[in-house]
Amino acid sequence: MRADKAYDELIRRVREEGLLTTVEALLEWDEETYMPSGGVENRSEQMALLAGLLHERGTDPRIGELLGEVEGSDLLADPLAPAAVNVRVLRREYDRSVLVPRSLVEEVARTTALAQKAWATARAESKFSTFRPWLEKIVELKRAEAECVGYENEPYDALIEDFEPGLNSAVVARLFDALRRELVPLAARITEARRQPDGGLLRRHFPRERQRTFGGRVAAAVGFDLDRGRLDLAVHPSCTSIGRGDCRITARFDDRDFAGGVLTILHEVGHGLYEQGLDPAHYGTPMGEALSVGMDESQARFWENRVGRSRGFWERFFPLARDLFPESLDDVSCSDFFFAVNRVSSSLIRAHADEVTYNLHVLVRFELERALVSGNLRAADLPSAWGDAYQRTLGIAPATDAEGCLQDGHWADGLLGYFPTYTLGDVFAAQLFARAEADLGNLDEQFAHGEYAPLVRWLGERVYRQGARYPSTRLIEVVTGSPPDHRPLVRALEAKYGALYGL
Amino acid sequence: MRADKAYDELIRRVREEGLLTTVEALLEWDEETYMPSGGVENRSEQMALLAGLLHERGTDPRIGELLGEVEGSDLLADPLAPAAVNVRVLRREYDRSVLVPRSLVEEVARTTALAQKAWATARAESKFSTFRPWLEKIVELKRAEAECVGYENEPYDALIEDFEPGLNSAVVARLFDALRRELVPLAARITEARRQPDGGLLRRHFPRERQRTFGGRVAAAVGFDLDRGRLDLAVHPSCTSIGRGDCRITARFDDRDFAGGVLTILHEVGHGLYEQGLDPAHYGTPMGEALSVGMDESQARFWENRVGRSRGFWERFFPLARDLFPESLDDVSCSDFFFAVNRVSSSLIRAHADEVTYNLHVLVRFELERALVSGNLRAADLPSAWGDAYQRTLGIAPATDAEGCLQDGHWADGLLGYFPTYTLGDVFAAQLFARAEADLGNLDEQFAHGEYAPLVRWLGERVYRQGARYPSTRLIEVVTGSPPDHRPLVRALEAKYGALYGL
Repeated sequence: MRADKAYDELIRRVREEGLLTTVEALLEWDEETYMPSGGVENRSEQMALLAGLLHERGTDPRIGELLGEVEGSDLLADPLAPAAVNVRVLRREYDRSVLVPRSLVEEVARTTALAQKAWATARAESKFSTFRPWLEKIVELKRAEAECVGYENEPYDALIEDFEPGLNSAVVARLFDALRRELVPLAARITEARRQPDGGLLRRHFPRERQRTFGGRVAAAVGFDLDRGRLDLAVHPSCTSIGRGDCRITARFDDRDFAGGVLTILHEVGHGLYEQGLDPAHYGTPMGEALSVGMDESQARFWENRVGRSRGFWERFFPLARDLFPESLDDVSCSDFFFAVNRVSSSLIRAHADEVTYNLHVLVRFELERALVSGNLRAADLPSAWGDAYQRTLGIAPATDAEGCLQDGHWADGLLGYFPTYTLGDVFAAQLFARAEADLGNLDEQFAHGEYAPLVRWLGERVYRQGARYPSTRLIEVVTGSPPDHRPLVRALEAKYGALYGL
Repeated sequence: MRADKAYDELIRRVREEGLLTTVEALLEWDEETYMPSGGVENRSEQMALLAGLLHERGTDPRIGELLGEVEGSDLLADPLAPAAVNVRVLRREYDRSVLVPRSLVEEVARTTALAQKAWATARAESKFSTFRPWLEKIVELKRAEAECVGYENEPYDALIEDFEPGLNSAVVARLFDALRRELVPLAARITEARRQPDGGLLRRHFPRERQRTFGGRVAAAVGFDLDRGRLDLAVHPSCTSIGRGDCRITARFDDRDFAGGVLTILHEVGHGLYEQGLDPAHYGTPMGEALSVGMDESQARFWENRVGRSRGFWERFFPLARDLFPESLDDVSCSDFFFAVNRVSSSLIRAHADEVTYNLHVLVRFELERALVSGNLRAADLPSAWGDAYQRTLGIAPATDAEGCLQDGHWADGLLGYFPTYTLGDVFAAQLFARAEADLGNLDEQFAHGEYAPLVRWLGERVYRQGARYPSTRLIEVVTGSPPDHRPLVRALEAKYGALYGL
């Protein structure tokens, strides 16, 4: 068989698998938005069926044959051309999927399905002991997975690699150590500053329906195409691609948390702009997909933090907010509102953290999950280790497990090695923002004028349409001239918070 | 292989195929309700992929082998037991699906996809000649399908049989002739009566959002379980099963057509009650599915006509209607309203017809499509044949093709042999209603008191939970003691309209 024919068949199969994945995505989206409660059991059967079909296709030996036919051929002469990129990524995914035996995949699926329920119960009762056996089992299964896949230094590397190809624990640890050294004192200086915002402004009454209107206007204004997407309500905010031309965001609103709702929408819009900006010519193949979890997260955090917490953004949108919520904002100035959006304080819950302390929460999780996987920390000792780490890093410790190690569902979901991508995303976002500003001029001014198109175009060329051409750490270097680097993030925070708090 | 093991494998496969069908159903429902416009092309690719997977599974030779293993075994000793019913139906479906070559199936799919666009254009321009070549092609393909499948008397029989197993043209023709003899003079007497309702009442202003509220209350009140279903807006009213515990109705509202909106909801609720009342033990197999298109339609028309156009129903719900639409109903009495709901007049458009003339519209279509398939009518002559048939049957003829033979999309969709099930449904519904009333006492009184549960229970035992145990014509006989019979329908119409119009 000729290499180009093999490549065509390979791409046809991959696109079909991608299409099936988008069908699975619709099942998930529908479950979160409109499915009636009586449909839960049926939905889990539908999901299991599709997962089985996808696994079957993903591990079909024919893929290995086709990859073999193509590899070493002239088709891949240019390592940065789409064919070479696609083959490289597909090889990595195929090898990983055949290295993990089906029995282990199924056991992980079964265990995490049950563990999620156990976790929910444990959290509701704030009782870690209910969840402990599940965590032990999950850590054991994920360690077994790491052994199947292989790693250089420690099993945790194999888990990170699944979400962020090319990354390992040592690089993450260096980055996080550097961040800790900068962020801990910065957070302390901010919270001790004499000048403090009035956080109460944001706790006034902001009716949800109007928040949804506001969110929809913001999404459209920054460039999210609602003819090729939707915005709906759901318990868990998310951005789901249902396929080409169909990218759906969900959000949740709380009458007493206006800023939280807007920032959540901007976070999901960041994912959505990435999805909507992918290269249509390569849709359904790695060259037309989001590069990695970390890069995808960088886009979300770019819009949430670098845009949504900027002065320019609020100069533009505060008047609309005041029109929609006159009873709560008539006596508030844009400056005070912007200051309130950027309130910083050490807190126990990651999901509600400000942008300065947020990465300290992630850092704690990285440290602890790495220790769990390496065997240096026993699951039984997690609550006390959690308390110590919070005390050391954020200066406070939880009084209950619910506010502590039971707050996130990631581990119950089998997501070990995932947390670092949150901070990696923040670091990437700041690097990209600094570079974009060097190329495009003062972005805050553009935001204040409602000009988002130049920035979206810039990201489109440099990030969205690059697909999986490079590993994320290399793409960042190609675009910004520097490998992953915590300094642009630290500089951005110091500049903004220094001015706001008069440090 | 032992027969019981073969049977278990067969059922496992059928259930999995059923599950995949419900995934396809979600794609359809979503397309009609929430999918953004940009997702159209992607959706058609997803649908094509699932159709291919389903066809592959439905024609897998393994099914033929398994059926062969089971047939003739003791498992099927009792022909009315679930195993025998399931095997009988699965054999029929399998034989039909393997008799039609994949190339023909695909050509029908391709042709009807394009024909639907051509039809929409032709209807918009009211120009039959645009649609004519497509109709010719579709008739030719469906005739080829009939030849593959085989038939006793005429090819049209093979097409009816696909929707209503056990039915044929001769039976339909007899039933329709009898109906024509009764309905034509009845409609004439009604429209010539001195006493006439004020149809204008229903054309007042009824805001859609409140119609939706009213519809939701009605659906819940008659027994549609909204924890296991939904009610949404869509261009095309429909009832879609997304699987066990998840049955979704869509409706469309027009500010100037209150009765039309409610009757549409009751129609879809009728389908929904059937779906929600299927035997859960047999879900996903013929014993746990709606029996046929005609029986499914009978349930829809039961609730639309026998309930929604009854005096008792409106005695119960008119007060709620007046609460919701005081500006339009404050000066209207329940009697006048009920009379207006039952206004009869010859009209050109089937979808808006009253219950007396409705079946005359269907009768015209049956006559014409039967002639098209047999070759007795050329597609080119359809418009004039349509005009003649309407003149003869309803006493009026369309001035344009849009109001005439282009009004329905069924033929563009490849649905030849489908129309008779509408009238069959009406005939069944009246037979079932008469029997239910003999068993349960005066139903109109029960409706007036909001008592629907006894009737739903009665239908559940006799129809819903019978699944595919009998062919529809036999089930009607088992339940009512009589084979398909037009007289209960005629008697019900004569009684109601006689009293209303003082005939």
